[in-house]
Amino acid sequence: MSLATDGAATAGDDLSAAVVGASGFAGGELLRLLDRHPSFVVDRATSREYAGRSVGAVHPNLRGAELRFTDPDDLGPVDVLFAATPHGVAMEHVGAWTDLADLVVDLSADFRLNDPAAYDEWYDGHDAPTYLDEAVYALPELHRDEIAASNPDVLATGGCNATATVLGLYPLVEAGIVDDDTETVVDVKVGSSEGGAGGGVAASHPERSGVVRPYAPTGHRHEAEIEQELGVPVSFTAHAVDMVRGASATCHLSLDEPVRTADCWTAFRDAYDDEPFVRTVAGGSGAYRYPEPKAVAGTNYADVGFEVGHDRMVVFSAIDNLTKGTAGQAVHAANVALGFEETAGLEFQGLHPVGSP
Amino acid sequence: MSLATDGAATAGDDLSAAVVGASGFAGGELLRLLDRHPSFVVDRATSREYAGRSVGAVHPNLRGAELRFTDPDDLGPVDVLFAATPHGVAMEHVGAWTDLADLVVDLSADFRLNDPAAYDEWYDGHDAPTYLDEAVYALPELHRDEIAASNPDVLATGGCNATATVLGLYPLVEAGIVDDDTETVVDVKVGSSEGGAGGGVAASHPERSGVVRPYAPTGHRHEAEIEQELGVPVSFTAHAVDMVRGASATCHLSLDEPVRTADCWTAFRDAYDDEPFVRTVAGGSGAYRYPEPKAVAGTNYADVGFEVGHDRMVVFSAIDNLTKGTAGQAVHAANVALGFEETAGLEFQGLHPVGSP
Amino acid sequence: MSLATDGAATAGDDLSAAVVGASGFAGGELLRLLDRHPSFVVDRATSREYAGRSVGAVHPNLRGAELRFTDPDDLGPVDVLFAATPHGVAMEHVGAWTDLADLVVDLSADFRLNDPAAYDEWYDGHDAPTYLDEAVYALPELHRDEIAASNPDVLATGGCNATATVLGLYPLVEAGIVDDDTETVVDVKVGSSEGGAGGGVAASHPERSGVVRPYAPTGHRHEAEIEQELGVPVSFTAHAVDMVRGASATCHLSLDEPVRTADCWTAFRDAYDDEPFVRTVAGGSGAYRYPEPKAVAGTNYADVGFEVGHDRMVVFSAIDNLTKGTAGQAVHAANVALGFEETAGLEFQGLHPVGSP
Amino acid sequence: MSLATDGAATAGDDLSAAVVGASGFAGGELLRLLDRHPSFVVDRATSREYAGRSVGAVHPNLRGAELRFTDPDDLGPVDVLFAATPHGVAMEHVGAWTDLADLVVDLSADFRLNDPAAYDEWYDGHDAPTYLDEAVYALPELHRDEIAASNPDVLATGGCNATATVLGLYPLVEAGIVDDDTETVVDVKVGSSEGGAGGGVAASHPERSGVVRPYAPTGHRHEAEIEQELGVPVSFTAHAVDMVRGASATCHLSLDEPVRTADCWTAFRDAYDDEPFVRTVAGGSGAYRYPEPKAVAGTNYADVGFEVGHDRMVVFSAIDNLTKGTAGQAVHAANVALGFEETAGLEFQGLHPVGSP
Repeated sequence: MSLATDGAATAGDDLSAAVVGASGFAGGELLRLLDRHPSFVVDRATSREYAGRSVGAVHPNLRGAELRFTDPDDLGPVDVLFAATPHGVAMEHVGAWTDLADLVVDLSADFRLNDPAAYDEWYDGHDAPTYLDEAVYALPELHRDEIAASNPDVLATGGCNATATVLGLYPLVEAGIVDDDTETVVDVKVGSSEGGAGGGVAASHPERSGVVRPYAPTGHRHEAEIEQELGVPVSFTAHAVDMVRGASATCHLSLDEPVRTADCWTAFRDAYDDEPFVRTVAGGSGAYRYPEPKAVAGTNYADVGFEVGHDRMVVFSAIDNLTKGTAGQAVHAANVALGFEETAGLEFQGLHPVGSP
Repeated sequence: MSLATDGAATAGDDLSAAVVGASGFAGGELLRLLDRHPSFVVDRATSREYAGRSVGAVHPNLRGAELRFTDPDDLGPVDVLFAATPHGVAMEHVGAWTDLADLVVDLSADFRLNDPAAYDEWYDGHDAPTYLDEAVYALPELHRDEIAASNPDVLATGGCNATATVLGLYPLVEAGIVDDDTETVVDVKVGSSEGGAGGGVAASHPERSGVVRPYAPTGHRHEAEIEQELGVPVSFTAHAVDMVRGASATCHLSLDEPVRTADCWTAFRDAYDDEPFVRTVAGGSGAYRYPEPKAVAGTNYADVGFEVGHDRMVVFSAIDNLTKGTAGQAVHAANVALGFEETAGLEFQGLHPVGSP
Repeated sequence: MSLATDGAATAGDDLSAAVVGASGFAGGELLRLLDRHPSFVVDRATSREYAGRSVGAVHPNLRGAELRFTDPDDLGPVDVLFAATPHGVAMEHVGAWTDLADLVVDLSADFRLNDPAAYDEWYDGHDAPTYLDEAVYALPELHRDEIAASNPDVLATGGCNATATVLGLYPLVEAGIVDDDTETVVDVKVGSSEGGAGGGVAASHPERSGVVRPYAPTGHRHEAEIEQELGVPVSFTAHAVDMVRGASATCHLSLDEPVRTADCWTAFRDAYDDEPFVRTVAGGSGAYRYPEPKAVAGTNYADVGFEVGHDRMVVFSAIDNLTKGTAGQAVHAANVALGFEETAGLEFQGLHPVGSP
Repeated sequence: MSLATDGAATAGDDLSAAVVGASGFAGGELLRLLDRHPSFVVDRATSREYAGRSVGAVHPNLRGAELRFTDPDDLGPVDVLFAATPHGVAMEHVGAWTDLADLVVDLSADFRLNDPAAYDEWYDGHDAPTYLDEAVYALPELHRDEIAASNPDVLATGGCNATATVLGLYPLVEAGIVDDDTETVVDVKVGSSEGGAGGGVAASHPERSGVVRPYAPTGHRHEAEIEQELGVPVSFTAHAVDMVRGASATCHLSLDEPVRTADCWTAFRDAYDDEPFVRTVAGGSGAYRYPEPKAVAGTNYADVGFEVGHDRMVVFSAIDNLTKGTAGQAVHAANVALGFEETAGLEFQGLHPVGSP
């Protein structure tokens, strides 16, 4: 078990890791993944609310781990600092964190966008704009070389909805099948863990069960990220559905000219044949013919697929929002940055059958 | 529609009704039922938090109703006052309410137990013990005559878990098959609406979905009610399961001497053949062989059934906790007290198929 | 209870009704609705498989009803014949049925399309094309006068996905906001009851729970219906999600020129202000800001709403696929055709809270 | 990846494994676990129905694995043969299987009971009774030495409901707190995967969603196993609830004399402190105070706990029916028999949050 007693020295060549914001869902997912990682030892997991409690008291899957939450003010030097704090926190602390750690991997939205003006438009502005330029968007499928080569101070994982969408469309953009003129509608379905731990009336079980609930029908913040990463415009709408984990993007493309299915297959193969965490799934028989979030729950896989119609095309992309969409992406990016095996800590292959993960 | 504009005069022979605590789940269920009741017009629905808002803003099934919430301090005279307030509120206000209304139907636990000492043991004591004696436990299957004959000031509906359990065991107690010496274990499974509107972490969708979660393994307050109503001891344990509505009681009876299935059928027939809201369901073919909460969701039915083994017997009882277990029981009791058709306002027969209601 | 013993004479002015295909989900829903209808008595409910069994043996919400299934070969004269048979059956029997009944209401796809050629393209051709011309598409919001005036022999209810979509877009088409040139993407989410009773591996609980499962990504048959009814092209994709009842259509419109929110409100008001079963829901506070299928489960309501963005617009429409999408629409149309109160038998206002209906 | 191309030679010291009945849920779970096992290479996965198809075509979590199903008639020599066939198959083939493999691990009920007469009473008799005596019940917590010492030909994993129950009660039986005279009621809640792949009406999503459905109220076959393993009588009743994976046993004990909580803790510590897969969970704060199946989904953990009341005690035990209840138990037992690290292949620690696994 790599969740060490607080302050324990790390053994041999292991790197020490801290998880800031460790009582939330993304923080707990980081603990889960790092716990099985061969090269990290987590010796700090911070939570102001639960300081002193064992991590298993909040995350029942970590029952038996010796690690306890500590106060975020008690952070010390560490090899890698993973931050899973609410939006706005990382931009406040990034200076201190980069002093403490060789590598900061931030899971919030604070360093995803390159342009400070975008934070004025989509968020409440930015407190540390100088870091935006050097921070790298931590999706290895698009930015492997940047992540690996520069050993940047700050890696910023993509948003979960954006990650699903970007991975679905990226091969077609690269192949020129989707471009600036394509009408692209993205209809996303997400689980309740995206709303974070805590609750509130709308997130309560009686009100949230069984929903197909639209939110942010237009103007979702992830549009900015998708357009930054792909360079093409999209119309994005999200719906909450009855699952806890998972984000599923359906991308509806209006094609100016017919496209051949074979060319799409080529595009997806070119993009992903060497990727350890992207699988192209389209058609076939059986119950699971297209990407589905429950087939990737708990894993770092993105399943992508498509169907070509007469003058349109539909692309499907399914991820676990907490893994590939957040914490798994962070660990993957750290693996790339630090030269570890890319799949280290991310070997879980998912469950079958599984209910509503 | 019987949800009148606030303050509207009632037509003809209709009785006016007020619902106190109308923004909660039980209060909303009262509004739903009274809305279709042929003899009531609801002209007050109180909610301190939502005063001024339309009832449909909180209860989406009442969209389009003109009724708006009013402040509970603005209550006026009314024929029947239904109270769906948290435990402890009714005992504080019962004097004022009985001044305002001819009949008070309380859905909380405040007047269920006859003995003030029981409130000291199971709750935080009682502020208005003089009302305990005259209040009638509002389960018509057990107390129809008391409810009807005396036209009491205060009717107190049973707790939902207690109601399910009592209706399952009552015929066997009446027939002498279950008595003081029978070891009776009651294992109840309930939906999330039992926890009330609002939330909190444990009630949030990510934490509450898919659970089989024990709570109050021993010493549940409903034990007191069950033993008061049946006169036999029970061991009661509750589990939260993944549904919103529903309470299902499995009663395991250890029999001192073998019992014949035919005698059990006779006991159930004697108890319930004339009851409009109790159906005996046992065996047969198909998917639904025993009582199940989803088969009674939204209805005022209690489905009861049993299977006899060698030296034991298992009794099943399923209700909708918000309807038969709370608001439907209240309307049923009011119908009995006021001489209305017993099924008035309670005609909904449920849905098939239905998911997790 | 209007589910008569088989063959019982109908009382007074009641009309007799037969439900053909009564053991399926749509047939059961018809029985549920007709059971509470003030002017119908169901005296035939056919099922080859369950002939002789009580209807409650298959539909647990009808426990206690005396009606038993009879063999479909034993049909006799009846005032109204509702057919809930698989696609292809009605076109074979429509001649016999119109001989037996004054009015035939068919819930299958057999008479929805006006053009025989469309059946060649989208289905397996048509056996009784002469009926296509006289059959009326039974959505009262679009065809009330046709349904009422002519007292046609055959009414054909719309498909559930088509119904949701058509009701969402109809006001905008009428107002000229959506036309032939609008790029319209329809992304539908539906419950498992749409697949009908029976099963199969993909419909089994372990495989079907928790899914966001694409099917028929392009070329869904309901496209033909939508385009027939609205006269505008749509790109339609369906997803199975984890609910049993419900169809939710999200219509993404790419606008050539900006549209004002106020004009959209006017369009929806013009279309639906006098409609008893359509409610416009858009924005506001609380958990339920847009149409959601769980808010209309079991009811005949269609909730519709929209949000206007910069150069796009998103329209939401939610129905219960078995009620407004099938059997409720059939009863509504029959009410219109026969001059009954339009809401007769369709008064159920839904539940709150409710899980995954 | 340890799912080799069919027939591939195993590398180095790895043992070859065959999974018979690999297209079912338990077979798929074996493939999942063996795929990550450091010492096994699966080179045969049999399925008559899917022979020739890749294992990922049936089990979407194994997408990308090269292994294909082969016909069960084509089995060859192998180090370990895991059988996940329906009850009755293993007893027919056990002779052939023990000829082919050094170790046979059977996941069906065919070799769980020691006494041939028990098969006459609870099943349809036994075809290979000579194997009953040598087969070892493969629950390491009770039979570690037998499993390890004798290197038996046949290991028989416990039933999932029995496993949950046995692990909950075993410490109390060992400590003498529960004995022959204790009234023990076991109320089990299980997920739909227990019914196996395939379907049928009762297992279809519309009928199976949201249920609390009793089955086998008395006389469940697992009673025989529980009584064999514990030597005390139990009254056992099962309920299907809305999850796919998981079995949760609530054991209600009627105590002749009061028991101290501290003595129970001692009993559980004595039994399980050195067990890698049993955790005692009782009380504390937070949402997860007692064992819950969703906290162990996908893992080989059994979480056990208890609460002591006045004259009674309630014990809770939660497992994943497919892992600890079937395939994980099989791998654990094989690890013990073969001298591998006990946790090899079973390191997955579960997810938080997770919906309805």
